[in-house]
Amino acid sequence: MLPSDSYRNKGLKRIFSGIQPTGIPHLGNYLGAIINWVKLQEECSSVLYSIVDLHSLTTPREPAVLRTNIQDIAAVLLACGLNPQKCILFQQSQVPEHTQLAWILGCFSSVPRLQHFPHWKIKNATQMNEGTAGLFTYPVLQAADILLYKSTHVPVGEDQVLHLELTQDTARRFNKKYGDFFPVPKAILTTTKKVKSLRDPSSKMSKSDPQKLATVCVTDSPEEIHKKFRKAVTDFTSEVTYDPEGRPGVSNLVAIHSAITGLSTEEVVHQSVGIDTAHYKAVVAEAVIEKFSPIRNEFKRLKEDRAYLEKVLCTGAEKAKELASPVYLEIKRLVGLH
Amino acid sequence: MLPSDSYRNKGLKRIFSGIQPTGIPHLGNYLGAIINWVKLQEECSSVLYSIVDLHSLTTPREPAVLRTNIQDIAAVLLACGLNPQKCILFQQSQVPEHTQLAWILGCFSSVPRLQHFPHWKIKNATQMNEGTAGLFTYPVLQAADILLYKSTHVPVGEDQVLHLELTQDTARRFNKKYGDFFPVPKAILTTTKKVKSLRDPSSKMSKSDPQKLATVCVTDSPEEIHKKFRKAVTDFTSEVTYDPEGRPGVSNLVAIHSAITGLSTEEVVHQSVGIDTAHYKAVVAEAVIEKFSPIRNEFKRLKEDRAYLEKVLCTGAEKAKELASPVYLEIKRLVGLH
Repeated sequence: MLPSDSYRNKGLKRIFSGIQPTGIPHLGNYLGAIINWVKLQEECSSVLYSIVDLHSLTTPREPAVLRTNIQDIAAVLLACGLNPQKCILFQQSQVPEHTQLAWILGCFSSVPRLQHFPHWKIKNATQMNEGTAGLFTYPVLQAADILLYKSTHVPVGEDQVLHLELTQDTARRFNKKYGDFFPVPKAILTTTKKVKSLRDPSSKMSKSDPQKLATVCVTDSPEEIHKKFRKAVTDFTSEVTYDPEGRPGVSNLVAIHSAITGLSTEEVVHQSVGIDTAHYKAVVAEAVIEKFSPIRNEFKRLKEDRAYLEKVLCTGAEKAKELASPVYLEIKRLVGLH
Repeated sequence: MLPSDSYRNKGLKRIFSGIQPTGIPHLGNYLGAIINWVKLQEECSSVLYSIVDLHSLTTPREPAVLRTNIQDIAAVLLACGLNPQKCILFQQSQVPEHTQLAWILGCFSSVPRLQHFPHWKIKNATQMNEGTAGLFTYPVLQAADILLYKSTHVPVGEDQVLHLELTQDTARRFNKKYGDFFPVPKAILTTTKKVKSLRDPSSKMSKSDPQKLATVCVTDSPEEIHKKFRKAVTDFTSEVTYDPEGRPGVSNLVAIHSAITGLSTEEVVHQSVGIDTAHYKAVVAEAVIEKFSPIRNEFKRLKEDRAYLEKVLCTGAEKAKELASPVYLEIKRLVGLH
């Protein structure tokens, strides 16, 4: 038995997931990922969440903005309910083994395969085909993030399934060459429906949407949230129904309402019989505000307490390193570096 | 003044070079690089030589062979005269900042540029165009190796000039964005003529030559060295002359003789008037043996003293880390990770 395998020998899960420090998460991030992260820390005994700052360098960043974003995302995640006693919350760049393992795994990852990743094709095109090696090898660092902790499960959105497949294949190829070492990590797929833009229900809600009213952030004020929902694009039927194909705007509100209250879409539609869409927008806004107000207040409090945030990240990095170091040492032995 | 710049403010050089642990160096490596390394440690106060084991992973390696090769190259370099009191000799993988900086620099390195590197084109072709991300991003790790120590000078062979140019450009681009931080490192070009294969003077002497008699290793026995020179391909003229175009075989011997004795080619030709090439081969072999015998003996002694070798590499890594850590911390601050 390898020292890094004690949790697996007890049949326990180890969960890893990462989030980029690219600004305050929005309603879609909250319902699609963060809620799930909070739930998983209650269900599993070994859970790691990483603020993947090295990944965020694959798009040019202003240093001062990046620095603030790292603090912000830590504060938001804690405000949303991540508990440093129940999960390891840490900053990727504070654990050097991530890039060390990424180098080794890069020596197992074929360039033609990386060339076919949609994220590369799309982003490279937007960069006039002058994309960087960082952007290109992004999925390799992701594989290292996950495998470094011998993670068994990875909560991912559908758009990340292809990336997780590379991680799985990398684990299998490594195991084939060096003996059974890595667990092949399984996806925990988010079942929540994608939250759509409030201004254009045909596209996803997005941080980078130029229309400020399209996106609700978890730290928005009640007034902002009310305004954004009031201006939400719906249609000319006043009744509240759930019909994503025929009535995408209202159905997006129903889906949000359902996800934030934990009720089914049928239940929320049933509750809204007799209410017109204008009134319904206020109902949904209230439900969102009820969830986000305490988060907003806690976020503001934590942002003032920079020493605490740094302590959380520092302790998290220490705990992550404790798990990563013996795994990386074993890997070095296996490949012959040690 | 940045704390990592004290040597530069005194106008001092910092020299960095690396060698892959891919087996015992041959006569060409010795005359082309190692002799120069020994000289530079006497001339400069800040000299780092790295056993770049992470680079060597870009070609598939057997773990046990790699492990032995790391020990061997350390022993050979010490036996050839590297003095751990005068230079920092260390194993690349023991200093995590190399891959950490490589990730950051990878986010500044364009993929199209890397695609044009001859090493990639050639090796990728031999790997049926299934080359790995490690092989592809090799020059980025090289840039990190050099810049991590704010090196001012890099001894390189001609085949590495293109790689150093990427490092120089990376330094300039980083400086342009974040302010004057890295010195733009200069090449120290080896002036020694390339040593040719003893079996085919039209090609370079190479470790991987399938003809065992073509390559003289620094740890070869006197008998082996005599035999290899005796079987060296020359021509049907018995006189010793230096005419690389017309008489490549004999001229290769003259060039070796000149480089190993420190005499000019004219001087060694002059000394050999009246000797036929058969006799001359024995003369050159003797000169090589005179140089290599003490190296061979010291190598054998060091190989037995594994604890000493490990201590040298461990101390070297500590010293390298002492230089690398503050530089990398400054870089993290500059890009906004810290």
